[in-house]
Amino acid sequence: MKKPFIHDDFLLTTKTARALYHEHAERMPIIDYHCHLPPQEIAEDQRWSDVSDVWLGGDHYKWRQMRACGFDERFCSGRGDDGRAGGWERFEAYAKTMERLVGNPLFDWSHLELARHFGVFERLCGASAKRIYAKCNRALAEKDFSARGLMKKSRVEVVCTTDDPDDDLRFHERIAAEPFGTKILPAWRPDRVLKEAVRTKKDPMAHLAERHRHFEAHGCKLSDYGLVDVPESGRYADWLFECLKMDARAGWTTQLHFNCLRDLNTRAFRRMGPDAGCDAINDSSPAKGLAKLLDRLEREDALPRMILYSLNPNDVEAVASIIGCFQKGPGRGKLQLGAAWWFLDQKDGIKKQLEALASLGALGNFVGMLTDSRSFLSYVRHEYFRRILCRKLGEEVERGEIPNDLKWLGGIVEDVSYNNAKNYFGF
Amino acid sequence: MKKPFIHDDFLLTTKTARALYHEHAERMPIIDYHCHLPPQEIAEDQRWSDVSDVWLGGDHYKWRQMRACGFDERFCSGRGDDGRAGGWERFEAYAKTMERLVGNPLFDWSHLELARHFGVFERLCGASAKRIYAKCNRALAEKDFSARGLMKKSRVEVVCTTDDPDDDLRFHERIAAEPFGTKILPAWRPDRVLKEAVRTKKDPMAHLAERHRHFEAHGCKLSDYGLVDVPESGRYADWLFECLKMDARAGWTTQLHFNCLRDLNTRAFRRMGPDAGCDAINDSSPAKGLAKLLDRLEREDALPRMILYSLNPNDVEAVASIIGCFQKGPGRGKLQLGAAWWFLDQKDGIKKQLEALASLGALGNFVGMLTDSRSFLSYVRHEYFRRILCRKLGEEVERGEIPNDLKWLGGIVEDVSYNNAKNYFGF
Amino acid sequence: MKKPFIHDDFLLTTKTARALYHEHAERMPIIDYHCHLPPQEIAEDQRWSDVSDVWLGGDHYKWRQMRACGFDERFCSGRGDDGRAGGWERFEAYAKTMERLVGNPLFDWSHLELARHFGVFERLCGASAKRIYAKCNRALAEKDFSARGLMKKSRVEVVCTTDDPDDDLRFHERIAAEPFGTKILPAWRPDRVLKEAVRTKKDPMAHLAERHRHFEAHGCKLSDYGLVDVPESGRYADWLFECLKMDARAGWTTQLHFNCLRDLNTRAFRRMGPDAGCDAINDSSPAKGLAKLLDRLEREDALPRMILYSLNPNDVEAVASIIGCFQKGPGRGKLQLGAAWWFLDQKDGIKKQLEALASLGALGNFVGMLTDSRSFLSYVRHEYFRRILCRKLGEEVERGEIPNDLKWLGGIVEDVSYNNAKNYFGF
Repeated sequence: MKKPFIHDDFLLTTKTARALYHEHAERMPIIDYHCHLPPQEIAEDQRWSDVSDVWLGGDHYKWRQMRACGFDERFCSGRGDDGRAGGWERFEAYAKTMERLVGNPLFDWSHLELARHFGVFERLCGASAKRIYAKCNRALAEKDFSARGLMKKSRVEVVCTTDDPDDDLRFHERIAAEPFGTKILPAWRPDRVLKEAVRTKKDPMAHLAERHRHFEAHGCKLSDYGLVDVPESGRYADWLFECLKMDARAGWTTQLHFNCLRDLNTRAFRRMGPDAGCDAINDSSPAKGLAKLLDRLEREDALPRMILYSLNPNDVEAVASIIGCFQKGPGRGKLQLGAAWWFLDQKDGIKKQLEALASLGALGNFVGMLTDSRSFLSYVRHEYFRRILCRKLGEEVERGEIPNDLKWLGGIVEDVSYNNAKNYFGF
Repeated sequence: MKKPFIHDDFLLTTKTARALYHEHAERMPIIDYHCHLPPQEIAEDQRWSDVSDVWLGGDHYKWRQMRACGFDERFCSGRGDDGRAGGWERFEAYAKTMERLVGNPLFDWSHLELARHFGVFERLCGASAKRIYAKCNRALAEKDFSARGLMKKSRVEVVCTTDDPDDDLRFHERIAAEPFGTKILPAWRPDRVLKEAVRTKKDPMAHLAERHRHFEAHGCKLSDYGLVDVPESGRYADWLFECLKMDARAGWTTQLHFNCLRDLNTRAFRRMGPDAGCDAINDSSPAKGLAKLLDRLEREDALPRMILYSLNPNDVEAVASIIGCFQKGPGRGKLQLGAAWWFLDQKDGIKKQLEALASLGALGNFVGMLTDSRSFLSYVRHEYFRRILCRKLGEEVERGEIPNDLKWLGGIVEDVSYNNAKNYFGF
Repeated sequence: MKKPFIHDDFLLTTKTARALYHEHAERMPIIDYHCHLPPQEIAEDQRWSDVSDVWLGGDHYKWRQMRACGFDERFCSGRGDDGRAGGWERFEAYAKTMERLVGNPLFDWSHLELARHFGVFERLCGASAKRIYAKCNRALAEKDFSARGLMKKSRVEVVCTTDDPDDDLRFHERIAAEPFGTKILPAWRPDRVLKEAVRTKKDPMAHLAERHRHFEAHGCKLSDYGLVDVPESGRYADWLFECLKMDARAGWTTQLHFNCLRDLNTRAFRRMGPDAGCDAINDSSPAKGLAKLLDRLEREDALPRMILYSLNPNDVEAVASIIGCFQKGPGRGKLQLGAAWWFLDQKDGIKKQLEALASLGALGNFVGMLTDSRSFLSYVRHEYFRRILCRKLGEEVERGEIPNDLKWLGGIVEDVSYNNAKNYFGF
């Protein structure tokens, strides 16, 4: 019988990689410092009866590929004029889409999710869809298949959600009142408020300062800002600067992600609204704007810990080199080149980010992966990342490019998988 | 005896790659939907008596490298003040140039062409030049060594040439009147007309609309536009928009290639004119202009099937992600990330395009390779592409990165090599 | 016992690579046509008593990483308010930093330097630091461990330093008056003068012309210009144009490096001045500016031999293709895509530059590596480069991507390592 696609040594091409993964990476819990899980679903310990709801319900990456394979909107978001197809019809459409997606991260993630959460090791395609659909739905009925159950099974220690400054955080309060194994914290994402302030030309800072304190009181430790480009000057640059000073004062870690284009397809947006899979990578030049922002903060001794993510893989070298101009103790890795993000959190993207980080920064200081996901099934992305990290180190050992010292390398793997994040964010 | 450089398993590094190539890729005919072959030479079934004429006559890639190796213009284009050297002298100059070109696509293409069309398996260099020159010239005398003979031998099913809107297409009419195994169609390339319209500020659209119908009547199915950058607004952006609406109305596929710089060397241009090897890759940022153009078309429900090629390899990720925002059925892969093009249609460029496509799009929907060539010998580029595709998949199977399912993968290889183009263009 | 990290076949992963390196690359002397060694230290045949002085004293790459690992400035540059820590303390800090730098070029360079100059083959880390520090300091006491001794031992035939136009070159005169095995020449770097001219708006050309002649009289053969971006027009573009005409007239080779950001961290600059490790990669688009500059020079028949380096790896393809538009005999490789530079002279950067060069240019014409270093220990970077070159060719031979002809490939390796530079610069 053929070996299944997903198995214990998936992506672990060398003996060293297998040792690093199984004896080090695999054992570490997960800190998921950035995701888009709805706090309400955690508070209510959400359950599902149709796999298409938990698997295809909000995942616009999957919708994009289904559209590219010719499927009508009712099989995808279901937000088109014809409503939404039933669970099985959508599942089958996705299964057929999978046949075209060789080498796509969705192919890997989907099969990892099927294996880890549903015990399915078969390749998903039109012919196997029926069988797999039934098996998945049976799994959903099991006792521990709920929002919290999935976190527990995945050994998730901390989760930071993504919250609007005007959110009252009452679901976070509810979760805090009845704690379970995973610590759930809010994270600060003022994009909507800043965008409206730009439109109305009204200074948002007093309001944001008050809300910032509210978030701080609820245990928030991270902020996140999404930018089309990194402005060198202007109102937006000023507000961003003020926000980051607040982050520094509160001891938060600032996440900045840039070169994002959103809602490009007006016609689709009118029908389906945001988060429908119509975002893309921008190609502006962030170097000067970024250098200015960091310098302006450092001059006022108000540079927070920061993680910088570009959506465009071309930016990694410039960003990594700029970061290097502002590093400072006492801690390690104050400024971080963020994990491969968004369209880039796939094999090649992760590999490229790790290579740039190793070449231009200090891989050993890296705070590692995040899911950035809307789904409780996505913790396999940490597994995926760790396998790729171990594969990289393993291949380098075999080629004699790095010393064959498993104890030392195992320590680095554990640090990047878990310890560094643990020490860095101060949860 | 040493194995020759070009052999049956050239570039096929794994058993899987060999199976995929020999049992699938190799068997498929060729659809060459973009090239620069002169229709007149097809109509007249051109023959050659000196290999330097068919091989070095119009190939400005070869001239570039010969210049870089110090050879005077009379060995290259022959358009300099000293006229053109004889066939043998030019051949010898190119053979010596080859000695410096290790790893260059010209090295691979040239040896593939020598092997497939002339039965030469020796490495071309100064020492072997005389022998190879004689052997090639003998081959030219064979009966089937003509424009049509080469197409037949290469199993080319469809060829689209590149034609000026003001071309009367009479050679295409002549070819259509006496059909042979390969279908020859014109393709619409209005760059010259648009450039003149920019200069004279005269609206070209009425004239272009009339010529568009003329091309449609002659079986044209593809357009092609070459851009320095993708303008966000202005007269050129408007005309381009109008042209693409015409393409959509006619059911054509639009090709857009951008980040091209042309005729950079004024002194060389004055002596030699265009297409002398003085074009290069530009580095403008196309994301926003492209997103705007697609959105504007989609708003009017006038988005044609499109293939987007950038000359700059840095653009592939942004372009692939933008495409994903506008995909729509009923067909598969309405918008395509174009094959590695121009300076990029070499091993690394093809690999990078395939990887970006697989990661950000759906590799299984890809319409595959084109020659973009001025020479009847260039069909080996399809072979080259298919070998690289099979190598990629083969290595991924061996590393356990994709499932080891040869039937499924073989189908993908056949689709990308031929079936997808067949279904997509509607020839 | 485990094989040490640095050994005879370090990075030489194939039999072919080993043959190419040991039978060809290794035997060639070094021409280091660009570095930042102080002529005074060569004139005075400088010696050191603490390894931290020669190894960590001026190396801001090392300081950057030490800061990123949380070490205070007194362990790094020592230019902070607290003065400089002692030799051992700084050495230990760097040793601990090394533990985080897996995959960083500093890791490789440092271990190569320890092995080649100090006979140390152990991995440098906190635990081994004491032992290694003592061994290094013992080595420093040996007779030939001096500026000139290190050059001799490294078989360096020519060294070009980097000099300000207003330098009187008296140290170069002193060296010339008492020659030793290595030829030491000045190189022209007018960045400071041009920057001041921009500020004062005073035309610097008359002064520069006079100094250019002074440098010519002292054997200068190379110029070097560092640019934030490549301007399409303006005063700076004009002065640059005039400078390059002078270079062409004098028969010099012009080096242009661009996309450099300098002294980004104002606070650090105020305390520590320039060259403190606060420079970074810029991401401007150089294609059009570069094409214009080359065209303007070629129109006046005043295009010098040139080496073009971008600090941003994204630029290599555009630059390589632009170069190809201006190549011309009689010599080979008149315009060169420069070696991986600055942040890029690491394994991946060197690999990427070699691949782009091979694909878009003629690898066989390449003038090869330079150290760009402030340290007499850095000649191991030539070894590093040659090993990577041989590894690349070796792997390509094993995969059947290039012909298995060791004599031919060995000749290319010798050319790129030494012969091409020897023939190109006319020292």
